[in-house]
Amino acid sequence: MTPFQFSSMVPPLSNLHHPFFNPIKPPLTDGGFSRDEVRLANRNPGTLLEALRYDLTPAGLHYLLIHFDVPFVASADDWTLSIGGLVNKPIKLSLADLKQRPQRSMPVTLECAGNGRAGVAPRYQSQPWHHEGVGTAEWTGTPLKSLLEEAGLADSAHDVVFYGTDRGFGGGQEHDYGRSLSPEQALDDDILVVWGMNGAPLLPQHGFPLRLVVPGWYGMASVKWLDRIEVIDRAFDGHQQAGTYVYRASADDPGTPVTTVRVKSLMVPPGIPDVYTRSRMVEAGPVNLFGRAWSGAGVGISKIEVAVDGEWQDAKLDLELGQYAWRGWTFNWQATPGDHELMCRATDANGDVQPIDPRFDIAGFGNNSVQRLTVTVR
Amino acid sequence: MTPFQFSSMVPPLSNLHHPFFNPIKPPLTDGGFSRDEVRLANRNPGTLLEALRYDLTPAGLHYLLIHFDVPFVASADDWTLSIGGLVNKPIKLSLADLKQRPQRSMPVTLECAGNGRAGVAPRYQSQPWHHEGVGTAEWTGTPLKSLLEEAGLADSAHDVVFYGTDRGFGGGQEHDYGRSLSPEQALDDDILVVWGMNGAPLLPQHGFPLRLVVPGWYGMASVKWLDRIEVIDRAFDGHQQAGTYVYRASADDPGTPVTTVRVKSLMVPPGIPDVYTRSRMVEAGPVNLFGRAWSGAGVGISKIEVAVDGEWQDAKLDLELGQYAWRGWTFNWQATPGDHELMCRATDANGDVQPIDPRFDIAGFGNNSVQRLTVTVR
Repeated sequence: MTPFQFSSMVPPLSNLHHPFFNPIKPPLTDGGFSRDEVRLANRNPGTLLEALRYDLTPAGLHYLLIHFDVPFVASADDWTLSIGGLVNKPIKLSLADLKQRPQRSMPVTLECAGNGRAGVAPRYQSQPWHHEGVGTAEWTGTPLKSLLEEAGLADSAHDVVFYGTDRGFGGGQEHDYGRSLSPEQALDDDILVVWGMNGAPLLPQHGFPLRLVVPGWYGMASVKWLDRIEVIDRAFDGHQQAGTYVYRASADDPGTPVTTVRVKSLMVPPGIPDVYTRSRMVEAGPVNLFGRAWSGAGVGISKIEVAVDGEWQDAKLDLELGQYAWRGWTFNWQATPGDHELMCRATDANGDVQPIDPRFDIAGFGNNSVQRLTVTVR
Repeated sequence: MTPFQFSSMVPPLSNLHHPFFNPIKPPLTDGGFSRDEVRLANRNPGTLLEALRYDLTPAGLHYLLIHFDVPFVASADDWTLSIGGLVNKPIKLSLADLKQRPQRSMPVTLECAGNGRAGVAPRYQSQPWHHEGVGTAEWTGTPLKSLLEEAGLADSAHDVVFYGTDRGFGGGQEHDYGRSLSPEQALDDDILVVWGMNGAPLLPQHGFPLRLVVPGWYGMASVKWLDRIEVIDRAFDGHQQAGTYVYRASADDPGTPVTTVRVKSLMVPPGIPDVYTRSRMVEAGPVNLFGRAWSGAGVGISKIEVAVDGEWQDAKLDLELGQYAWRGWTFNWQATPGDHELMCRATDANGDVQPIDPRFDIAGFGNNSVQRLTVTVR
């Protein structure tokens, strides 16, 4: 039934005592950051908070979360996307084939599921995001739905699995990066198989030449370097699906899968920074605060509030950029000399509102607590 | 004499006890990394080592060191470059004026002076680079020399100071980012005033719309968001010139200015990584190691060596890309099962060779010690 081999299915190795296969995950900590965490922070940049001003995040300022290495793809000419497994008609398409299909462009805000992890205590040692694991791009591609309909999912289909060509070890398992959706989720009208970003080909680090974009979901669902889709008759148990990206309150909690993005907002820090501490100095007088707010699954933002020294007031929402894109907001602050704490808080159309304090998750996923910023006004 | 005001010259503030003005710099440490260091690592990405494969680093994969905030420049139409101070004829040019002048494109490798800081013990708390603060781009602009000749340096000229519009606090001083060169250095034929990067306009984070590129020097000399040049009759004592970017062995060492890039090399880590530790697994058999080597001030690379488990052998140099660009190299390694340590070491045409161990510098500048990489071969 399967027309091609999935290279993620490798035989187990004999050396089961090797650290790759029996990883000792560092414990939760309240202490200083490890060298491994710093290395990850430097590999996986966040956006710059001052770049929230751009409706579409400029090239190179969109956050990255590269699990393994960026595959080196010298040319897209030979790239193919295969759809196989439990389908009526396995198909294999070149990039040129895909570009012949109906095309759609859509601004989508993507956020890392671990964004805010460094603010959760005790801290899980992984990519130590503060607030910056978010960005917005206009993605161009073709709807996944029509591809899946052309292949035809078998009645026994349980999961649709998306694989990239990026490969490595995680949780002791060697695997190509892989994530699944249920058939119902995968047949959503708005999921795109994407080759373009902000009017240009995908950059290498964003999945060149082909990726998935699952709007409204945290970024782990939007598989990069996508080259094959496999339909299976069971729940996908790959590491990136079952071993991580699960909300868990404790080590023995079976947990709940991480899916859509929780409501969140950020502001551009006003004033000018100190080079090391990033503390801010602001001139007294009128200050036009600007920020962004977003929520997952195509739910709009209904309210944005700003607190100066704990007193909440409504901010003004800008026009929507699109169903799945962040929304700008402004707030006129009359800044008076002294130190002040600024916060912003969004509410979405479902009535979900950002918590003031981080909720605990064992791996630091889904921390959508409010951004707090202390500034000095002179 | 000076035709315009330099906004970096602000009156001192009354509140001298504010931490912005009396910063307590954290001590050197051998311990875990601070939240401030992690925030900087995440703001200032390194290149990805696997991206060393590209002759020109793709957009978004070139390292960044943003001292303050990236200025938000909505349009370059009103941007001007002023040359004033001790010149015979102050001039002010728009970007359109500059693009009318003789144009030159040149591949240049830029490296942060603090690259390698996280490997120096005890560690200065600042941007905690491991190896990745380096990248290569083709820069397009007009020679600085002809601009300075048109303005005409006065006989009393001692320093030529370059200012960006990025502003903040460093070492307790508020300032626009500013760096100086001596007249002799500034009149070098190869320094460019740049508006293009890899055939496109500068990205915001690389200095849009205008920057300096000083080939062969560490990156701090290549002032971004350049809008004014001032010629002065004394040594420039701005923080970025006198307060930092100085090699110092101890706190009371007057030190030596950081200038040209020390000889260095890096390799693309072979095999596949673990997602958290970045440890590598390599298949036994022939492995084609690839890397880059570079040195400052236009001095070429004369030799590159690779050590497997401490035994040095010559690697093969690729063709030169340009006088100021890194040079590719390859080494065929016959990998045998087990753990192995890989190193690479470059020698430049001056006979300078990379040290095996980091030399100590109080701020972690100029660490060009060899990259060491332990991999597991199966």
